[in-house]
Amino acid sequence: MTTTEADAEALSAPDPHTPTAPEHPEHPAGAVHGYHEQKAEHLKRLRRIEGQIRGLQRMVDEDTYCIDILTQVSASTKALQSFALQLLEEHLRHCVADAAVRGGDEIDAKVDEATKAIARLLRT
Amino acid sequence: MTTTEADAEALSAPDPHTPTAPEHPEHPAGAVHGYHEQKAEHLKRLRRIEGQIRGLQRMVDEDTYCIDILTQVSASTKALQSFALQLLEEHLRHCVADAAVRGGDEIDAKVDEATKAIARLLRT
Amino acid sequence: MTTTEADAEALSAPDPHTPTAPEHPEHPAGAVHGYHEQKAEHLKRLRRIEGQIRGLQRMVDEDTYCIDILTQVSASTKALQSFALQLLEEHLRHCVADAAVRGGDEIDAKVDEATKAIARLLRT
Amino acid sequence: MTTTEADAEALSAPDPHTPTAPEHPEHPAGAVHGYHEQKAEHLKRLRRIEGQIRGLQRMVDEDTYCIDILTQVSASTKALQSFALQLLEEHLRHCVADAAVRGGDEIDAKVDEATKAIARLLRT
Repeated sequence: MTTTEADAEALSAPDPHTPTAPEHPEHPAGAVHGYHEQKAEHLKRLRRIEGQIRGLQRMVDEDTYCIDILTQVSASTKALQSFALQLLEEHLRHCVADAAVRGGDEIDAKVDEATKAIARLLRT
Repeated sequence: MTTTEADAEALSAPDPHTPTAPEHPEHPAGAVHGYHEQKAEHLKRLRRIEGQIRGLQRMVDEDTYCIDILTQVSASTKALQSFALQLLEEHLRHCVADAAVRGGDEIDAKVDEATKAIARLLRT
Repeated sequence: MTTTEADAEALSAPDPHTPTAPEHPEHPAGAVHGYHEQKAEHLKRLRRIEGQIRGLQRMVDEDTYCIDILTQVSASTKALQSFALQLLEEHLRHCVADAAVRGGDEIDAKVDEATKAIARLLRT
Repeated sequence: MTTTEADAEALSAPDPHTPTAPEHPEHPAGAVHGYHEQKAEHLKRLRRIEGQIRGLQRMVDEDTYCIDILTQVSASTKALQSFALQLLEEHLRHCVADAAVRGGDEIDAKVDEATKAIARLLRT
């Protein structure tokens, strides 16, 4: 029932932008979000999705057959959902789990917030 | 159209809370799942969805216009997703949060499992 | 560019309920919807889905593990989507295609209606 | 963050409407796809989505709170689905309806193809 590992991880994670002035005052000083470690991977994924969207523009511009464009839209949507799922997993593993460990009402708010985010993903 | 079969089925279901014979030995004795308190509400929701599905059968049987059937399918799917979201919320609030509090590796397995369940919901 | 086959099919299809009084006055007399021929198959599918929903009730009643219930919800949602897709395919093949053949403004209304139905399926 | 690359890419795209060299020999000469008239609108939409994806990269780079990123992902997915629906509507109105009017087996292939595209959109 110890939180030492999580704490150590959170504390040792450097703030990449403003070491003296945390950007998210609502979060404990020095805390970074769950996805921090996968940042490079996330950016790579998003750049690939950006490339897919540019590919869609090219397809429209070149009068590609509608169905082929739709196939590419499905691939881009899938890639976005996949990115969202990874982000969500890290959020649950870090932010939500940390709130549970800290105790109090915070976990309720965090779970409520995460569920609403999942609902938004499902409804799109 | 009678509901006798469904009623009979519901009535014949044994009480799962016999204190002497736990059904889920993999869970701590006495532990019930997160959705336990909302059980009556869940069953009510599911019976309503069952009614919608029977309504769909009636529509097909009566040669209802395709688009009207599709509208009812969307409503049923939405109701199922809504049920899933509530179950998921309770799961996060109880099972996942409890695993976080207990510490150790369990939280990783729980988050992994929950994320896979969310992925399955998204992909349907 | 002949519509003979489609017409013959529509005309020969018996109205299973009220041979003298068409139920859908907005549709040509004697016309049945695209899914008519697959009616038995559709009813079988829907009964299977109804069974899945009853299975969900049993799972909740027996305190089945949340994640296992979510897996079953995903399966039911998938089955409903699959039913919707088949219905939609038949609708496009018959109702929408027939409107195109008949000419005039009807095709616009039919396509608009079908697109809205697809949007509702996507948003659930 | 500059948009030079995107601009360059867009500018270098050749004009697809060279009347002497049809790019899609499988389609009747002079035929353009259903979405042709909305081309400018589609490109505008896609550029907006591209902007959203770049916004996501900025959010990840600036350690934005996970849930806020997920909200933006949902917005982008919704925008992509919305684009797909418009494309699909035009496809049904033109390509599918035209096949119906031409008669023969083509309508079956077109409807089959469109249904598969809708299935792919639903499953993402």
